[in-house]
Amino acid sequence: MSMIVNRRDLDFVLYETLGLDKILQSERYGDYDRESLDSMLDLCQTIAEEEFLTCAAKLDANEPEFVDGKVETIPELKSAISAYQEAGLCASAYDSDIGGMQLPMMMDQALNGMFVCANNPAHIYLFLTQGVANMLAVCGSDELKNKYLPNLVNGNWFGTMCLSEPQAGSSLADITTKADLNVEGSYSITGTKMWISGGEQDITENIIHMVLAKIPGSPPGVKGISLFLVPKNRVNDDGSPGDFNNIALAGLNHKMGCRGATNCLLNFGESGESIGYLVGKENHGLANMFHMMNEARISVGMSAVMTALGGYLYSLDYARNRPQGRPLVNRNPEDPQIMISEHADIKRMLMTQKAFIEGAQTLMYYCAEMIDTKKTSRDQQQIQRLDLLLDLLTPICKSWPSEYCLEANKLAIQVLGGYGYTREYPVERLYRDNRLNHIHEGTWGIQGIDILGRKVRMHDGAAVAILREEMESTMDVASKHLELVNYCGQLEDSLSLVEKTIAAVAKADDPALALANATIFLDSMGHLVVAWMWLKQAVAAVEGKLDHNASDSAFYDGKLAATGFFFRYELPKIKPNLELVADLDSTCYDLTAEQFIGI
Amino acid sequence: MSMIVNRRDLDFVLYETLGLDKILQSERYGDYDRESLDSMLDLCQTIAEEEFLTCAAKLDANEPEFVDGKVETIPELKSAISAYQEAGLCASAYDSDIGGMQLPMMMDQALNGMFVCANNPAHIYLFLTQGVANMLAVCGSDELKNKYLPNLVNGNWFGTMCLSEPQAGSSLADITTKADLNVEGSYSITGTKMWISGGEQDITENIIHMVLAKIPGSPPGVKGISLFLVPKNRVNDDGSPGDFNNIALAGLNHKMGCRGATNCLLNFGESGESIGYLVGKENHGLANMFHMMNEARISVGMSAVMTALGGYLYSLDYARNRPQGRPLVNRNPEDPQIMISEHADIKRMLMTQKAFIEGAQTLMYYCAEMIDTKKTSRDQQQIQRLDLLLDLLTPICKSWPSEYCLEANKLAIQVLGGYGYTREYPVERLYRDNRLNHIHEGTWGIQGIDILGRKVRMHDGAAVAILREEMESTMDVASKHLELVNYCGQLEDSLSLVEKTIAAVAKADDPALALANATIFLDSMGHLVVAWMWLKQAVAAVEGKLDHNASDSAFYDGKLAATGFFFRYELPKIKPNLELVADLDSTCYDLTAEQFIGI
Repeated sequence: MSMIVNRRDLDFVLYETLGLDKILQSERYGDYDRESLDSMLDLCQTIAEEEFLTCAAKLDANEPEFVDGKVETIPELKSAISAYQEAGLCASAYDSDIGGMQLPMMMDQALNGMFVCANNPAHIYLFLTQGVANMLAVCGSDELKNKYLPNLVNGNWFGTMCLSEPQAGSSLADITTKADLNVEGSYSITGTKMWISGGEQDITENIIHMVLAKIPGSPPGVKGISLFLVPKNRVNDDGSPGDFNNIALAGLNHKMGCRGATNCLLNFGESGESIGYLVGKENHGLANMFHMMNEARISVGMSAVMTALGGYLYSLDYARNRPQGRPLVNRNPEDPQIMISEHADIKRMLMTQKAFIEGAQTLMYYCAEMIDTKKTSRDQQQIQRLDLLLDLLTPICKSWPSEYCLEANKLAIQVLGGYGYTREYPVERLYRDNRLNHIHEGTWGIQGIDILGRKVRMHDGAAVAILREEMESTMDVASKHLELVNYCGQLEDSLSLVEKTIAAVAKADDPALALANATIFLDSMGHLVVAWMWLKQAVAAVEGKLDHNASDSAFYDGKLAATGFFFRYELPKIKPNLELVADLDSTCYDLTAEQFIGI
Repeated sequence: MSMIVNRRDLDFVLYETLGLDKILQSERYGDYDRESLDSMLDLCQTIAEEEFLTCAAKLDANEPEFVDGKVETIPELKSAISAYQEAGLCASAYDSDIGGMQLPMMMDQALNGMFVCANNPAHIYLFLTQGVANMLAVCGSDELKNKYLPNLVNGNWFGTMCLSEPQAGSSLADITTKADLNVEGSYSITGTKMWISGGEQDITENIIHMVLAKIPGSPPGVKGISLFLVPKNRVNDDGSPGDFNNIALAGLNHKMGCRGATNCLLNFGESGESIGYLVGKENHGLANMFHMMNEARISVGMSAVMTALGGYLYSLDYARNRPQGRPLVNRNPEDPQIMISEHADIKRMLMTQKAFIEGAQTLMYYCAEMIDTKKTSRDQQQIQRLDLLLDLLTPICKSWPSEYCLEANKLAIQVLGGYGYTREYPVERLYRDNRLNHIHEGTWGIQGIDILGRKVRMHDGAAVAILREEMESTMDVASKHLELVNYCGQLEDSLSLVEKTIAAVAKADDPALALANATIFLDSMGHLVVAWMWLKQAVAAVEGKLDHNASDSAFYDGKLAATGFFFRYELPKIKPNLELVADLDSTCYDLTAEQFIGI
């Protein structure tokens, strides 16, 4: 079995649970059919398994080094990325008008997901570049696009996002990097940027930084932030490489996981001028940067899912091949040992991983499907509807997998026991890698404030109303199947509880107290949405069992069992949590800094 | 503030919540008073901070290496351990008749706890040696004791426990290491032992291994296991060092955390004879090994608590000194930023750490107090009662901190954001270190089977009845304080729910199905017991507020707030979990190996 993908499950999600086949019928994606996409998946699986997976452990043990102001990475990383580039995969995420493959996002996520599972840190360089190119394509002037976009799209150059600074991580209002207008219309950038993934590397000949900075005289706070394109090496008008643009690598951060992806402290304009070019309008930097944020945050969620999938597949394979112990009802030491996958608690840990990972994965593809549908739609009302639902679900996509798929990685270690705790097996590395996802691209706490403070309220709660309609439509179908009726009732009750909680919070006088338990709300709402995703899968499984031949029935039975698990073991947990949120419980909020330890 | 101990809290637990003062009144511990113990804590805090904490990061980054069949460790590790030895601390855990300090276990845990918090991997060598010496003191012949015990007690030699083998981790019934009787009464040991912490090192001149092995002709399974003392270097009759005993280091395991503690694969009798000496009776090896298991498992729980405490103290200090962002009610970017400890979600994450760590810590000291009371008691009925309660609580002591204090470490990283994910800060290292505790000394799943399959049933449920009496006695006192009355009601309801669950499980026909959700039961019962520990602390806090001067009130208010947190945010979680256990839910149990991914 593959350690980076369960192709049967991927087919189930894309074609049986969701409607990639329908997306493929649109004019926009008419160049593709299931057969051509399957071949693409085959190719990607091969490259990911042969080039990315094979060097993942080595890359982790030999992280990029800071030598004479430059970065040195292991040759295997460059070979792997080069195989990806040569297969033309750098263009997977872009429209054909800028030289892209114009794949549905569902498929882009599916094929990139295999690389993430195989070697997430290696893929981070590629993922960031996609974000930069898409941002430039949407917000940049024709001049900038002509000069920089082709080399980003074909993967000759990589890109980065430079938001944070040492004194301003989550608080972008406080960034101090400065952009002074030059006579010829460009800007001189000066300042220090922190946590820049891929900020320096020895893989591509140039790096295109997207930098948030302030033009002197602009309004204070986030309203005075502009976005600039700042190349590592200047580019001459004919496209030939120019001089070094004075972006100095001041240091590398040494991380717990995702070690193969450099994370840099960069000084702009310290030892000479760093020339930058305004992208979009002055003082619209944050909006331009966040233009791609929904898709980026879904990708972060997908990375959490895929990192956990690696642990799940590995621990499942291990459990099915590792003899140890005997059944509780027969401890005779002279009888042979059983595989540990037969022990109830190992089953529980494998099932928990399955339920979290496959539930979250369905949510990621569901959101990707919405983005694909939007792009194929000319119905403004439908587009607005999809935008609202995506806005609502994005913080869940970012956070729920970061929490629960990390938990899955923790369980994968436990299945392997002592072996799982050693670096000879991949499960501990995947656990370390996954711990990143709750931190970057907007922390856990920020996602909570986003959903409870903004998303559930926007347009008088329109997004939650749309969520209800969509969930009801799933429940309508599901309730026709006798074995799913109880889940429908439980889902309806849970949805009502979420709605009541939102209403209770809306009545709070103190807006800070209203959001005091926002993270707990986010978490519980994630459980509601993932339960819904399991109901969608259960419908597909019931229907699949009717339509398909019996050889596949174990797969469908597994889906139904995991649905049962999520509804019985997980969904009931939201009730006490939502009560705290609705009660505006102030236990934590009231605590003073002195009370923690008495000094 | 110290990064390894909150002395105010330690005083609160030992003297205000529990009764170390009463223990000190006994004849057995009459050499000590609070003042002398405080001086000892001062000394230990200094050594731990100056020698252990200072090299923790370096030890993690420079793990022991396997060079020419030997182990090389960094010199700072040897200096740190040498400072511990020179202060006479190696003898802290032993009775005076064998040269020990005869400290109450409560104090032994307190002073060693600081070293664990400062540098757990360095302390592992010391902790294991204590276990070996105690085992030898209880089970060994006078000849063995005379020859080996003094050098273990004074710390000149270290000890190890050799249970697992590559093919037999949790399943000791399947070990194959063999012990052949020699003519002179010793044994030749042959076999391979795996996961041996401290199995080889360059710190002490000799290492005393306690090895489980089978004498040919002994019964199959655990009933045929004997315990042997096998020295790394043979010891001449006059105590002088003899020849190498042919225990070959076959390899080191490279772990995710606790890297400074070697973890070895050892070959006995491969290149020559490895002489071993029977400890205790033939075929009583497991019982002899498990003689110290209660205390060892409490120490594992304490190590989980202390590793989390390091993360808590560090993240609290960071949060109180890191300006970032503004209150939700005033986002004016021209106003100064606030400390992140003012943000509601940071408070939630700090409070969660506090509630888990200080709750679990109280349980560890409560169990240590029982062991101390046992040792000072001549009342056989009281001793039996304490033994039963200890037996019941031990799996919780081992597992609950391994789960929830690891969660605390996860939150400590989150408080620091990106910084927390880098190796420049200690919180990620502590998180990696703590992941070990669910695995060694009996895995999570094994503890679950132990508590639900054996401990709650033994002597017709006598241990649970004792637990009820002890909890009721706390509730009697607590209910006299108006602000604690509601907690008493909630605790009583939770206890009843646990009792009903145990009764429901007892009726199951299928013993395997009865234990299918044993781990979930263990977890929930842990919540019950930790809630009880919080009620104990709340009583002490309420009484402390009455007795003490006002300068200390923030500390007590923090204790009461954390009690509120545990009862409101955590304890309600057990209800849906215990329902699954009582219902004998078979969702996971029924799953076949094929159903997970369909192949």
